[in-house]
Amino acid sequence: MSKPIIGDAAGAGGFRKPTGEESRALRAELEDFNAQYSLVLDEGDLQAWPEFFTEDAFYSVTARENFDHDMPVGLVHCEGKGMLKDRAFAIQHTAMFAPRYLRHYITNTLAIGVSDDGAVVARANYMVLETLHDDPTTHIHQAGSYHDIFARGEDGALLLRRRICVYDSLIIPTALVFPV
Amino acid sequence: MSKPIIGDAAGAGGFRKPTGEESRALRAELEDFNAQYSLVLDEGDLQAWPEFFTEDAFYSVTARENFDHDMPVGLVHCEGKGMLKDRAFAIQHTAMFAPRYLRHYITNTLAIGVSDDGAVVARANYMVLETLHDDPTTHIHQAGSYHDIFARGEDGALLLRRRICVYDSLIIPTALVFPV
Amino acid sequence: MSKPIIGDAAGAGGFRKPTGEESRALRAELEDFNAQYSLVLDEGDLQAWPEFFTEDAFYSVTARENFDHDMPVGLVHCEGKGMLKDRAFAIQHTAMFAPRYLRHYITNTLAIGVSDDGAVVARANYMVLETLHDDPTTHIHQAGSYHDIFARGEDGALLLRRRICVYDSLIIPTALVFPV
Repeated sequence: MSKPIIGDAAGAGGFRKPTGEESRALRAELEDFNAQYSLVLDEGDLQAWPEFFTEDAFYSVTARENFDHDMPVGLVHCEGKGMLKDRAFAIQHTAMFAPRYLRHYITNTLAIGVSDDGAVVARANYMVLETLHDDPTTHIHQAGSYHDIFARGEDGALLLRRRICVYDSLIIPTALVFPV
Repeated sequence: MSKPIIGDAAGAGGFRKPTGEESRALRAELEDFNAQYSLVLDEGDLQAWPEFFTEDAFYSVTARENFDHDMPVGLVHCEGKGMLKDRAFAIQHTAMFAPRYLRHYITNTLAIGVSDDGAVVARANYMVLETLHDDPTTHIHQAGSYHDIFARGEDGALLLRRRICVYDSLIIPTALVFPV
Repeated sequence: MSKPIIGDAAGAGGFRKPTGEESRALRAELEDFNAQYSLVLDEGDLQAWPEFFTEDAFYSVTARENFDHDMPVGLVHCEGKGMLKDRAFAIQHTAMFAPRYLRHYITNTLAIGVSDDGAVVARANYMVLETLHDDPTTHIHQAGSYHDIFARGEDGALLLRRRICVYDSLIIPTALVFPV
């Protein structure tokens, strides 16, 4: 898998750096998108989760150490919306795990590349807090950043063509079954 | 107390789902509001806190478990601005607690319903970090989400008609005396 | 050093309180700035960090206890872009510290003062999470708020003329070598 498109590299793949005005207009769209995405995950509505992606979407959750060294291995690796649906179904119907609440906090949203057909390269930092039902304390489950490429749906709304969730923690959380 | 107005249910009470453009315009207003609200609480200016609410406002802090089961019981329960003022006064003048700093982080702000008279149904995730004066570490005090209904003041600015703070933690923090 | 310019005091130094509309337009600019600033620090690109400041910039990291009592002492204290560059160079070339990932989360951004020449007084809450390479858990490294004054560069873009990072923790983190 290629490295994320950032800064000067934003020219790759038909992307150019957005102007200040474009960047600020895109921020509002990206923040709306990410807030809706998180709401679905925070409320455990996994069936709705794949609808944030394009049909040919790529989704993965990978350690920063691997990502920085261009190692394609990931904790989660989905190619195509079908695999996302399978994953959501599996979690809801077959996975065994202790009951918990997850809550997403997404900050530092930034459009770093745009193309003439409306696609957007974006970044954001995410933090997932976890509260287990049998433990009173809320703790940091995962901290990392989204490396995203958005396309446009038929109605012009943003859809994820690629979301790589790059987490800082070096030990794989054994309980990571939910999407990030 | 009724469940929060979300998604399809946004039609209830004269609310409809905002268009993408409305949603993005409201985001800026909501984020300004929440940043000012948090600033007042972070600086311990409790007297200013009730001014973010309408006269007939409802404010509560309740566990997610209770909220999800429509249990109206809450850790804090205020009906009307008078009760909010009483609470702020009591904390500043009578409460006994260890000195601490609190800091609010509000993310994932989202307008999910609007009405023709300018009212807004909104959500946001909040995290309150706490630093006790006799403990060097900063820890997560409370994580949860705001379930808000905003009205408009005479000057057109947003005012909270309802804020339900739904926290994920299952054990009630014994030191919860401050508003969230 | 003087106290931060907040609320009524925003009139000091030629600053006035922004209108609601101005405040919302500035929010987008401030959030873009802070997201780019954080991205540079999260990726360890310290050489790019001084470029967010004016030539005569003031930068400090200080405890809230000191700040609230007008004590100018700080953990970090830089006057002028030259000192910022020196600091960045020293960290990259001479400092000894355990390898770690840092990640910034900036929320509650708010413009509280504007002047006719485009300068802006602003606030934001920040949280820095730290993941040491030899420890699987991600923890809160520092929580606090930015007390900023922005000027405009020749291209009209925001530049920091002053950033005071006021942290809540009472014990100085011994490992604080990186900018916040």
